[in-house]
Amino acid sequence: MSIVDLEPIGRRIEVDPDTDLLTAAQRAGVDLVSACGGVGICGTCRVCLVRGTLSAMTLVEEDQLRPEEIEQGYRLACQAYPLSDVRLEIPPESLPVPQKMQVDGRESEFEIVPNVVPLELNLAAPTIEDLRADLTRANQAVAEAGHAPLQGDLGQLAQLSQQLRRQNWAATLAIRPRPGVSDLVAVLLPNSGLLGLAVDLGSTKLAIYLVDLHSGATLAKTGVMNPQISYGEDVVSRIAFANRSEANRKLLQTRLVDSLNQAVGEFCAQLKVSTAQIVDAVVVGNTAMHHFFCGLPVEQLGAAPYVAAVSQPLEFRASEIGLDLGLGAWVYLPANIAGYVGGDHTSVLLTTQLYAPGKTVVAVDIGTNTEISAIHQGKIVSCSTASGPAFEGAHIRDGMRAAPGAIERVYIHGDQVQVLTIGEQPPVGICGSGILTALSEMLGAGVLDERGALVKSDPRVRVANGKSEFVLVPASKTASGRDLVITRGDVNEIQLAKGAIRAGIEILMDEVGINAAQVEAWIIAGAFGTYLDLTSAMRLGMFPTAPLERFHQVGNAAGVGAKQMLLSRTKRQEASDLAARAGYIELTIYPEFTEKFVESMYFG
Amino acid sequence: MSIVDLEPIGRRIEVDPDTDLLTAAQRAGVDLVSACGGVGICGTCRVCLVRGTLSAMTLVEEDQLRPEEIEQGYRLACQAYPLSDVRLEIPPESLPVPQKMQVDGRESEFEIVPNVVPLELNLAAPTIEDLRADLTRANQAVAEAGHAPLQGDLGQLAQLSQQLRRQNWAATLAIRPRPGVSDLVAVLLPNSGLLGLAVDLGSTKLAIYLVDLHSGATLAKTGVMNPQISYGEDVVSRIAFANRSEANRKLLQTRLVDSLNQAVGEFCAQLKVSTAQIVDAVVVGNTAMHHFFCGLPVEQLGAAPYVAAVSQPLEFRASEIGLDLGLGAWVYLPANIAGYVGGDHTSVLLTTQLYAPGKTVVAVDIGTNTEISAIHQGKIVSCSTASGPAFEGAHIRDGMRAAPGAIERVYIHGDQVQVLTIGEQPPVGICGSGILTALSEMLGAGVLDERGALVKSDPRVRVANGKSEFVLVPASKTASGRDLVITRGDVNEIQLAKGAIRAGIEILMDEVGINAAQVEAWIIAGAFGTYLDLTSAMRLGMFPTAPLERFHQVGNAAGVGAKQMLLSRTKRQEASDLAARAGYIELTIYPEFTEKFVESMYFG
Repeated sequence: MSIVDLEPIGRRIEVDPDTDLLTAAQRAGVDLVSACGGVGICGTCRVCLVRGTLSAMTLVEEDQLRPEEIEQGYRLACQAYPLSDVRLEIPPESLPVPQKMQVDGRESEFEIVPNVVPLELNLAAPTIEDLRADLTRANQAVAEAGHAPLQGDLGQLAQLSQQLRRQNWAATLAIRPRPGVSDLVAVLLPNSGLLGLAVDLGSTKLAIYLVDLHSGATLAKTGVMNPQISYGEDVVSRIAFANRSEANRKLLQTRLVDSLNQAVGEFCAQLKVSTAQIVDAVVVGNTAMHHFFCGLPVEQLGAAPYVAAVSQPLEFRASEIGLDLGLGAWVYLPANIAGYVGGDHTSVLLTTQLYAPGKTVVAVDIGTNTEISAIHQGKIVSCSTASGPAFEGAHIRDGMRAAPGAIERVYIHGDQVQVLTIGEQPPVGICGSGILTALSEMLGAGVLDERGALVKSDPRVRVANGKSEFVLVPASKTASGRDLVITRGDVNEIQLAKGAIRAGIEILMDEVGINAAQVEAWIIAGAFGTYLDLTSAMRLGMFPTAPLERFHQVGNAAGVGAKQMLLSRTKRQEASDLAARAGYIELTIYPEFTEKFVESMYFG
Repeated sequence: MSIVDLEPIGRRIEVDPDTDLLTAAQRAGVDLVSACGGVGICGTCRVCLVRGTLSAMTLVEEDQLRPEEIEQGYRLACQAYPLSDVRLEIPPESLPVPQKMQVDGRESEFEIVPNVVPLELNLAAPTIEDLRADLTRANQAVAEAGHAPLQGDLGQLAQLSQQLRRQNWAATLAIRPRPGVSDLVAVLLPNSGLLGLAVDLGSTKLAIYLVDLHSGATLAKTGVMNPQISYGEDVVSRIAFANRSEANRKLLQTRLVDSLNQAVGEFCAQLKVSTAQIVDAVVVGNTAMHHFFCGLPVEQLGAAPYVAAVSQPLEFRASEIGLDLGLGAWVYLPANIAGYVGGDHTSVLLTTQLYAPGKTVVAVDIGTNTEISAIHQGKIVSCSTASGPAFEGAHIRDGMRAAPGAIERVYIHGDQVQVLTIGEQPPVGICGSGILTALSEMLGAGVLDERGALVKSDPRVRVANGKSEFVLVPASKTASGRDLVITRGDVNEIQLAKGAIRAGIEILMDEVGINAAQVEAWIIAGAFGTYLDLTSAMRLGMFPTAPLERFHQVGNAAGVGAKQMLLSRTKRQEASDLAARAGYIELTIYPEFTEKFVESMYFG
């Protein structure tokens, strides 16, 4: 066994000598760019050896790497195996995620039945004896291939005519078969592959995947900040911003679309493919993000009774919103369940079918809003709860996002407080998973009581400005030279957040008539959920106590579901059926919510 | 009986005292603006009495006309009846047609089955107990009215949500019912009427009609010059212009769309209706105009074998080409038959079914290109022939369009040559119908021989610059003070034009296996065809000799057909079936064409 250290993000994993570095990094939760999926042809998964010994350079690497890169120690992660403990430096271009972001969830196998399919055309040129119009000519070949006649907008029909003539009457058409008609999506060079885009529009982060529609392989992925953050940290403040003017609403849409266009441009440059080959997209997000993205009105999402303008699945041309994919590319958004339970949760429900088909499930997608569903004997009930941004480090005195220098684990042994930071750097602040373990340890050490009060007799608890705080890292050991502390206010933020989640879980379990012991699978989705220490979360009462092995920390399940829907019309239908079956509980008017919420705020 | 003289266009008609002036003007071929259809509420059909006596002023007129207008002699044509011979001055604003233009053909009755229908909605507002999305809420009412679920682009779905909320959940929806889906076209105030636009895109003129989709009434109409004339007199030169750059092609489209937008704006201002109410449009034109309008490539129309990019019927959103109708308005273009037999001819074929259903028909739509069809025992064969612009006065030494001062009739009695001009003004030039009667009379008077030579012994034939010419009007009687002449060159132009038409007719009759005597109805369409003197045309050999009563000069049959298709989906289907049945003869490769053409150039 060898220990592989990954810098500068500071992840460590122990692997056997048969594990290549790309796989090792993936297991450590580091998503290296790997456009070709690990077969050595794309040259994107570069790493630089800092210390230790790797397997010999392969011919593939010699081909893909320049001599000066080889001299500097560069290798392709998919080609190299550790022969000793090694320390690797990951160059920024090999990291699709500038911050630690969960863009990958667990995936599973299913049949690929894409919405848009290729069709190779080879036509006879017109002659004076064969005066059929270009479209009529193409349609005959389309009919011979067993498809319904082409339909497209004028731009596409013009393109069909021009490209067929320029390409000497040969082309790959991308078509979307529907009953009685085949939507023309793209006219490409002969033998072109078709690509698709899957997107999870998180309130904070956008996860974007480029997928091969034939093989199902994810060719590229990236996570970028949601550019709307400049206009409001949470969706409520963005809705208020949008409601001030049509221009504001349009701006929120444009900024989103621009971010996707930029990512697509980078993907295409990196993989040397054409945007014209991207013929389909699936986009998921909460209902507000869904409406922002589609340019739908959001006034009614900002005031009771919080009703969506559109909840059913939507499909439209990418060009309608300025998304630069292929000329006639489609965009699909699955059904929203309610004003605060969006298509991203529908997507999560879809992925639960991979982990626990037919089982009793509680699915929790933790974010600024946390959406929860309970599934039992075919019944689905969902709710949304405002867990707030505390788990992303916001509203916490020394909180920060999960970036280098963030404390992500805390251990308390007697007087000793030990912290682990991302990237093994000097502590800068504390991220969501860090504060959760901190509170759990403080509870265990008796520094914190069940009501959330700091025990003032503890030597590390002090009073500043009349408020008590726990010194996590003294100034001497921090990056800033300031003490890093956890305040009573921080504890309250976490109490509110975890209390809201727990209350939602309890109410949904009541609604479907189960208790925690009956839950066969707990699906914990979302970036924070992936890095969450389950033991801490249970000790704090965020989740009911349950066997650890029943928990599945599935990462960005919404993104995984989006990819499934991109690759399979069957999955789209399955998602629609799930959304249609899902009942919705509005917690704000639920009789026992306040009582459950207050109860759930206590620790333990 | 009273004689009504209409100035300044110089038309005269004899009517009985029960005929109002609007009807009188219409019978004389003068289309006064009459937005309300003659019921006295729009005040648009103003005329000014110059001489004679009219019935007493009605209360309606006193209401609609200002005192100073009444003092100046203004009346509403729909309200006034002639009590003596009268001379009326028609102010420019009452004339939709700045030149004499045929925008109206004969119309006939048929069942109105519009493509877009209204649906009144009255919905319950959402409550905390009824959290259905806006679209879901609307769709339930749509289903209760027996329609399939709404489908629209994002802009329309946004509009639906906003308008419903602003209008307190009441609205008139305009929807296009299709199998399984209702396209959302417009969200209007409750109890709004739906309007449609019918357009004939002539190479020279655009005829534009605003139609009430419920009653079928034509609310307004206009004829404007085709703005593309600046870029080429005929479609061949415009195709060459378009082929020089994408920008040129786009410009030709934009200029057309701008002209329509302007006309629509004027209609709406005049009738005090909203463009949002215009929910459907039918546009016909020759294949080149069709492609220009749709932005389709035209390279292939400019070179053999002259193949259309698209020949099948097209339907798309008006917004796709920047046509400013209702937000989701549709535009329908019927099928083209061939590269030089377009949807305007399909529209003419449709109208032949009104005049002579099931009969043996020859339909001739005369223009710069003349399209001809022969219909016999269910068989339809069509061709196009380059008759050139001579009939519109172009390429004729003293030719002009049918505008005031144009000679439109010529009579030769012995030495006397008498001319009638449009507007009874001093002769300025000669228009198409004028030159045809001139040649016919010259042939009868022996000034012209059968081969087209001017008989030099005639005193009115002289030789200038070595070429013979016939003096039609001496300088002393013309507006310019120059002689108006008909040259040998002019005669040749007419020979080529009428020879091409006659050759086409002969070949098509051969193809369907009939002779002229078997033709039960001759449909002569197009502006020129309406003013054409049939006797002259037959004497010159433009048409075979046939009983005059079998000829129907139907005016702008293409425009009439467009209106029918606007009002009836059944008519659209009928037009598609006719186009699909129509065989096409390419005259340029037809074995006997040259022979027939040369034969047909002779007179008599």
